[in-house]
Amino acid sequence: MQRFCKTHYSLMCNLCGFLQLILLFLNNNILYMQNRVEENMSEIVPPEVRPKPAVPAKPSHVALPSRSALLGYIGIDTIIEQMRKKTMKTGFDFNIMVVGQSGLGKSTLVNTLFKSQVSRRSTGWSRDEKIPKTVEIKSVSHVIEEGGVKMKLTVIDTPGFGDQINNENCWEPISKYINEQYEKFLKEEVNIARKKRIPDTRIHCCLYFISPTGHSLRQLDTEFMKHLSRVVNIIPIIAKSDTLTLDEKTEFKQRVRKELEACGIECYPQKEFDEDMEDKSDNDKIREAMPFAVVGSDKEYQANGKRILGRKTAWGVVEVENPNHCEFSLLRDFMIRSHLQDLKEVTHNIHYETYRAKRLNDNGGLHPISSGQDTQESNL
Amino acid sequence: MQRFCKTHYSLMCNLCGFLQLILLFLNNNILYMQNRVEENMSEIVPPEVRPKPAVPAKPSHVALPSRSALLGYIGIDTIIEQMRKKTMKTGFDFNIMVVGQSGLGKSTLVNTLFKSQVSRRSTGWSRDEKIPKTVEIKSVSHVIEEGGVKMKLTVIDTPGFGDQINNENCWEPISKYINEQYEKFLKEEVNIARKKRIPDTRIHCCLYFISPTGHSLRQLDTEFMKHLSRVVNIIPIIAKSDTLTLDEKTEFKQRVRKELEACGIECYPQKEFDEDMEDKSDNDKIREAMPFAVVGSDKEYQANGKRILGRKTAWGVVEVENPNHCEFSLLRDFMIRSHLQDLKEVTHNIHYETYRAKRLNDNGGLHPISSGQDTQESNL
Repeated sequence: MQRFCKTHYSLMCNLCGFLQLILLFLNNNILYMQNRVEENMSEIVPPEVRPKPAVPAKPSHVALPSRSALLGYIGIDTIIEQMRKKTMKTGFDFNIMVVGQSGLGKSTLVNTLFKSQVSRRSTGWSRDEKIPKTVEIKSVSHVIEEGGVKMKLTVIDTPGFGDQINNENCWEPISKYINEQYEKFLKEEVNIARKKRIPDTRIHCCLYFISPTGHSLRQLDTEFMKHLSRVVNIIPIIAKSDTLTLDEKTEFKQRVRKELEACGIECYPQKEFDEDMEDKSDNDKIREAMPFAVVGSDKEYQANGKRILGRKTAWGVVEVENPNHCEFSLLRDFMIRSHLQDLKEVTHNIHYETYRAKRLNDNGGLHPISSGQDTQESNL
Repeated sequence: MQRFCKTHYSLMCNLCGFLQLILLFLNNNILYMQNRVEENMSEIVPPEVRPKPAVPAKPSHVALPSRSALLGYIGIDTIIEQMRKKTMKTGFDFNIMVVGQSGLGKSTLVNTLFKSQVSRRSTGWSRDEKIPKTVEIKSVSHVIEEGGVKMKLTVIDTPGFGDQINNENCWEPISKYINEQYEKFLKEEVNIARKKRIPDTRIHCCLYFISPTGHSLRQLDTEFMKHLSRVVNIIPIIAKSDTLTLDEKTEFKQRVRKELEACGIECYPQKEFDEDMEDKSDNDKIREAMPFAVVGSDKEYQANGKRILGRKTAWGVVEVENPNHCEFSLLRDFMIRSHLQDLKEVTHNIHYETYRAKRLNDNGGLHPISSGQDTQESNL
């Protein structure tokens, strides 16, 4: 176990009502002798074996001996277990928005991701369920639990997007909705009597569905992403990719990546927010594989004695979770199993902070208000 | 695995520039058929086995069948692992203050708690190291690492407390210091361009050292705790308790508890902040055992072939970590291994929020400022 010690002394003297602050930074390494157990000794251990006091030694960037140790186990690492317990009790919010033309399988894909009916699917457009004349924003929430961890999942659908004859500015109601959630959070945050846990309705992830044309991005796609990629985490995906051959898929993906770069669109995970080399290396792999070409399904079939989610055709079954068939499992692993917390943190630390700074600069500051009426307690 | 589903639909129609918000709360339970694997089937699974859509069913407080399951593993619980990874990278701050008359072994106890020299010990009062004429506030920081988790520990000492002929209002500089840390945090929080991680210098825990008189609390003790227990988490401990016999200890502890109650002093963990029955039951046990009668030592002895921290006397060795000898290990387990995260959360959610609300109410709000000059980046 290694032990790094940086010591700084701050001395605050309260004298005559004045507070003097003297900060001395001393970078020290404390090197402890290893805590050997000596079976045959029975008397007082000589003082040399006790921890040495912090003395100015080598600066901390010098490699420390790997066998230096604390005098015994303290329990600092139990903080992880303590945090786990708290998270199990409170649960967490995750809000995902799906954007794309109708018929690209948005609801089916989200239902496949969360292995349940978390998004309503329009089963054929009846007279009552026409394609809306403008972009609508519809949200559905579910609490799902796994391994004792509760997640309040909200799926925000945007029916009508890209479905009009004239789709000019159809990203505007979406942008407006996203900013309204930041505003709601900000208002709650500056409240004098604020909630211990501010209900989080901010969009953590926006799945953008690209039509599997095999050609390139349409203007609507680039316009949407240009306007929105600075305010929300966008993950572009190629929908219904079972219509593409392997070669078509590879080529299409490459073309989309080039076009995104040419337009200066930074999708999630954004290069500039990589925190260290490990982040960079992990995220580079994802950036090189994007946009994920996916297939969704909530129908189960039998294959090799197992139940699998898939789409049955005359020439075979497309297995949704088989990485040789499509990139659904890559998307799921990335979005849920490795980057879910990061999606939430980038939303809070980058997108929300950007909105907040702009809002406060524009208005000369929001005044804290005594009661937050139009906010709702999270019902988790 | 159980699955609770609460569904609410919010429909936001962006029509003529107006946003209509319709919130419908439907408490539903979705009950899935268990995901049985049937080896001999080879055709399409009948639709009955697929997840049923969310339908208004029993209200969620009705007990759910315990064998209902999701259609498969999603990975929601990986959030814990994702959070662990983030915590391992960032580390965390923990600030502990020690208060009590000189000679009660404050530094030794903190060094024993963290098994290293995290607090400077005054080795005899030389001419240069006189007892200060007023209460001073001295802080020392160390970064200690265990199991890959880095903690920036700051120990804030208060030499001079209770050491004067006239100790009137000697809690004032301490109270002032505590509030100054809240103010610092608040100023940073309302900054327009604020830090992603606000350096936390707020006192998470104040160890108050009671003299092992065997009689009762002195007026200074009750005055201090009366004034400070509403602004900081106080954990009172009986120092150098090896001077008390078992009976004396039991009696003294009981008397202290009664006196605290009579004075209306609520130490940490405060009853009113118990979040559920589990919390209450855990914390009741701690409240009944308080104040912990402890002994500190940084000297090691041999006992039964093991090295133990202890104090050697002519009649035996007081083993610091032996629960039959003193309550040091109870204090350590409580403070570090079970309640460290909670100490931080109560500080943030209760004490800091109380300060913030009062401050904003008094001043009609703090205006966000563009640059935070006198704050320091955490050097973790």
